Amino acid sequence: MLCKICKAKGKREKAVIFIRHHRLALCKKHFLEWFQKQTLKTIKHFSMFKKNEKIGVAVSGGKDSLSLWQLLTEAGFETVGIHISLGIDTEDYSKKSLNLCQKLAEKINKPLIVFDLKKEFEHTIEEIAKLSGRKDICSICGTFKRYIMNKVALKENLYAIATGHNLDDESAVLLSNTIRWEIGYLGRQYPVLHEREGFARKVKPFCFLTEKEIVSYAILKGIDFMETGCPNAKMATSPAYKQALAYLEHKMPGTKLRFYKEFLKKAKPIFEKETKEEYDLTPCKICGMPTTADICSVCRILEKIRGVDA
Amino acid sequence: MLCKICKAKGKREKAVIFIRHHRLALCKKHFLEWFQKQTLKTIKHFSMFKKNEKIGVAVSGGKDSLSLWQLLTEAGFETVGIHISLGIDTEDYSKKSLNLCQKLAEKINKPLIVFDLKKEFEHTIEEIAKLSGRKDICSICGTFKRYIMNKVALKENLYAIATGHNLDDESAVLLSNTIRWEIGYLGRQYPVLHEREGFARKVKPFCFLTEKEIVSYAILKGIDFMETGCPNAKMATSPAYKQALAYLEHKMPGTKLRFYKEFLKKAKPIFEKETKEEYDLTPCKICGMPTTADICSVCRILEKIRGVDA
Repeated sequence: MLCKICKAKGKREKAVIFIRHHRLALCKKHFLEWFQKQTLKTIKHFSMFKKNEKIGVAVSGGKDSLSLWQLLTEAGFETVGIHISLGIDTEDYSKKSLNLCQKLAEKINKPLIVFDLKKEFEHTIEEIAKLSGRKDICSICGTFKRYIMNKVALKENLYAIATGHNLDDESAVLLSNTIRWEIGYLGRQYPVLHEREGFARKVKPFCFLTEKEIVSYAILKGIDFMETGCPNAKMATSPAYKQALAYLEHKMPGTKLRFYKEFLKKAKPIFEKETKEEYDLTPCKICGMPTTADICSVCRILEKIRGVDA
Repeated sequence: MLCKICKAKGKREKAVIFIRHHRLALCKKHFLEWFQKQTLKTIKHFSMFKKNEKIGVAVSGGKDSLSLWQLLTEAGFETVGIHISLGIDTEDYSKKSLNLCQKLAEKINKPLIVFDLKKEFEHTIEEIAKLSGRKDICSICGTFKRYIMNKVALKENLYAIATGHNLDDESAVLLSNTIRWEIGYLGRQYPVLHEREGFARKVKPFCFLTEKEIVSYAILKGIDFMETGCPNAKMATSPAYKQALAYLEHKMPGTKLRFYKEFLKKAKPIFEKETKEEYDLTPCKICGMPTTADICSVCRILEKIRGVDA
């Protein structure tokens, strides 16, 4: 297959990727251009952030977040990487993840802030889950990650935290919330989460790009990334929704993109009206971070582990 | 596996069916009881119709509609079958369908009204589609079926038309409308469609029962039904949505029922508010049936075929 853009210019260049739902075959050069343009369009459309604003990129070591960091940096944004080291030993998962983030930081010559759970809280994420007696490690891990990201954003005075969530992630979460008709979640799901008292602004510049497109970008850009997912995530249900969408996408190319875009345009405003933010935030009595209770959920878990409440 | 109800009574009876999402194994007797009870509960919950009201059951010759007719009749409702003979020759489809409806009519001793397209309109549905130059035969067929059902309901003074739509149908339509965020359709999808000037009341008493449950009922009740679908329906997209839901159901039993029930409870009222019926109905200048235009779509197609507009 030939690159569509080269062909239009009378040149014959082999395509490296075929983006089925856009019916677009592109060579390396034009794919990388297209990919960056799509990302910048999303940033602009949702007024995510501007050139003079300092952005934290949450980097896990995976293809999505590392690609995002390199792209934003190359596009001239003021970025800093933030990596949370969870202390997962299985297959050296956390050590390898950190190394890949450090490697990219050197390559693009940008600072990487590392938050080491074991150092800061005396325990790895698996120890925290075990000691607190909770089996849902993914949910605990999410709570800690959100907490730490907010804390770092505050400390470093960041305008926003950018995450590598892609179209496959966003459409799977959307399908999951839709199948269960979680009106509250549906009213809030959006590529931008606005900042409020102590909560950082969160943005998802890759929300319209697929996993396949991002992995192609990462490979063509020579980015080294973790190819295996977190060893603790095996029990997650989102793969089922991803599979169901992959099937529909296969039968009807463009399903995922249309599903998510039409949601943002037509359904999200309707659900938003039904979604009332009923809670008030106060500073946590221990750490000072915003919470709906006296003590925030992270401090509550940490206190329990330290035996204060035990 | 043993029947759960028999077991609770201290008896050991082999189950003929296991309803996975209810974790319910039942013998023939208790399954048939359960199935009828579920249907009657749905009829009552949505105030579909009562014992003294004359109901038309739209029978195609398939498992759903024939099972519904037999069940409603046995439960003591005043029923009449309505069959539209489309004139489809492939595999003797229409002839076989009619025979199966007639066979059940005799068995349950109820009248069957047959509307023969060729006799009434001089053409079979395939001829109508071809002559009118439209390729979407399923959509034309739907238009004609709705029109004829309304006409028969009016003529026979029926309180409602009951159709055999099941949970697999309803959840697939729901998923299709949701994936495309068709707010208008979502605001209207419901087990009851209320009557209005010339449009009959439509009800779906099987909307919470699965295809598997209905086919089991039909077999256990000795109902002969068409095992092949319409030969023209091969191109329909709904099988893709059915497949995607079947996959989610397999991974998470109860998905389909929860998806549809939660929709009716939580989402449908929200979409309904956004859905305005903006059209006015006037009698068709040719046939007198209600329409939003001067001439209804069926008369328009028939006129075109007859060469008036051609």
